Amino acid sequence: MYTENIGHHISGLFNKDLEEIRHKVLVMGGLVEQQLDQSIQAFISSDMEMAERVIQQDNEVNAMEACIERECTQILALRQPAAFDLRFLLAVLKIIYELERMGDKAKRIAQITVRLAVNQAQVSYYELVHMAELVKGMLLDALNAFARLSLDSVLVIAQQDEKVDREYDSILRQLITRMMEDSRNITRTLDVLWTVRALERIGSHACHICEHLVYALKGEYVNHMSPQELEAKLTTPSYEHTIQVRH
Amino acid sequence: MYTENIGHHISGLFNKDLEEIRHKVLVMGGLVEQQLDQSIQAFISSDMEMAERVIQQDNEVNAMEACIERECTQILALRQPAAFDLRFLLAVLKIIYELERMGDKAKRIAQITVRLAVNQAQVSYYELVHMAELVKGMLLDALNAFARLSLDSVLVIAQQDEKVDREYDSILRQLITRMMEDSRNITRTLDVLWTVRALERIGSHACHICEHLVYALKGEYVNHMSPQELEAKLTTPSYEHTIQVRH
Repeated sequence: MYTENIGHHISGLFNKDLEEIRHKVLVMGGLVEQQLDQSIQAFISSDMEMAERVIQQDNEVNAMEACIERECTQILALRQPAAFDLRFLLAVLKIIYELERMGDKAKRIAQITVRLAVNQAQVSYYELVHMAELVKGMLLDALNAFARLSLDSVLVIAQQDEKVDREYDSILRQLITRMMEDSRNITRTLDVLWTVRALERIGSHACHICEHLVYALKGEYVNHMSPQELEAKLTTPSYEHTIQVRH
Repeated sequence: MYTENIGHHISGLFNKDLEEIRHKVLVMGGLVEQQLDQSIQAFISSDMEMAERVIQQDNEVNAMEACIERECTQILALRQPAAFDLRFLLAVLKIIYELERMGDKAKRIAQITVRLAVNQAQVSYYELVHMAELVKGMLLDALNAFARLSLDSVLVIAQQDEKVDREYDSILRQLITRMMEDSRNITRTLDVLWTVRALERIGSHACHICEHLVYALKGEYVNHMSPQELEAKLTTPSYEHTIQVRH
């Protein structure tokens, strides 16, 4: 648990600023969670209206990203933070980018839904629903980790991502079989394939959020690491990255 | 042309730091260009050896990203830059992320090449080669824009991206037809499809690099804008974003 870090600030005002940023990131994260959830619901129930709402809501997510980015930049310019505060703000800039990419992918699923609904597709999406549940869980866990400034579940999220990748491979194989069996299905099946691919990417973004959080809290770059390497990093005693700070 | 901006610094040392960062980003960009070029060459000529080299080189790109990121963070902590310098550093952090994603996609094309070569695929890739040329041009132009700190070609790059998207749609339709005609081809054709998709994404990353550059130079957020909206933004007189700076 690293929540005590957020108390160590130059001024009370700064503390409040960081808290506000943290709050806004969580609001943005909640919006993306909702987008993801509704895009999947819309997809499996061919709900065009809900899909349209998801598409519209993407503007809101983009606007939130720009707003948080502006505020982070203002704090960097005005308060010139160092150590944890600096890393926290830099991590936030990356985390909101990941969230925005996730929102884009939910929008993409919604757009596919609209296209599929027009084509009146009726397919069973059992495996896709299961994969979507996994990915939603990863996003929720990543946002909780950010909210609590805790790295406790980071490793579990990385392991979940490997599970998602395996499910993705398995669904991909099934979809290819389906296309081979009935070539009239190819266009429609490809749309399902794009959806599954979008879900897989969303899972990766959840992992990236965790990587940025590790950077904020431990000052360590853990991008491109396997869960095994990540575990080794996380179990070594926490230490601050040696950023030299002006005195 | 905005190159005069890079001269306005607090100290000569700072200037040198920024110049060094700019140089390193260009070296990283050159490496990604090479990766992209070789991944396409390997793909169309089924050159497994070259594909393996591209896969290996991805580690180098990742290491460069981490190195530049560390240096940017150090400068932010030590020198606490404001105005253009701050925006420049924040833009660099994003640009190297885009480059790293591009490198990942080149690696993906190389991995597909290895898989396809094992399956001894012999297909003609005329359209794909044309699309790859467009995308390579976009990356080169984006890196040149960054090198010269100039927004002159930003709009052209955004328009090229629309062209790439149209080519992508057209190739996608052809691939679907191919799959429908011969279902034994589906797995192999899907691999071509992933490659085309990776190229399309690389084009988008080149556009994002330009967006980050606009932010650095004009202090304006132009993400998610159409080329038309972007044109309107770029033709308005340049002004500095109203970041309040501590005096």
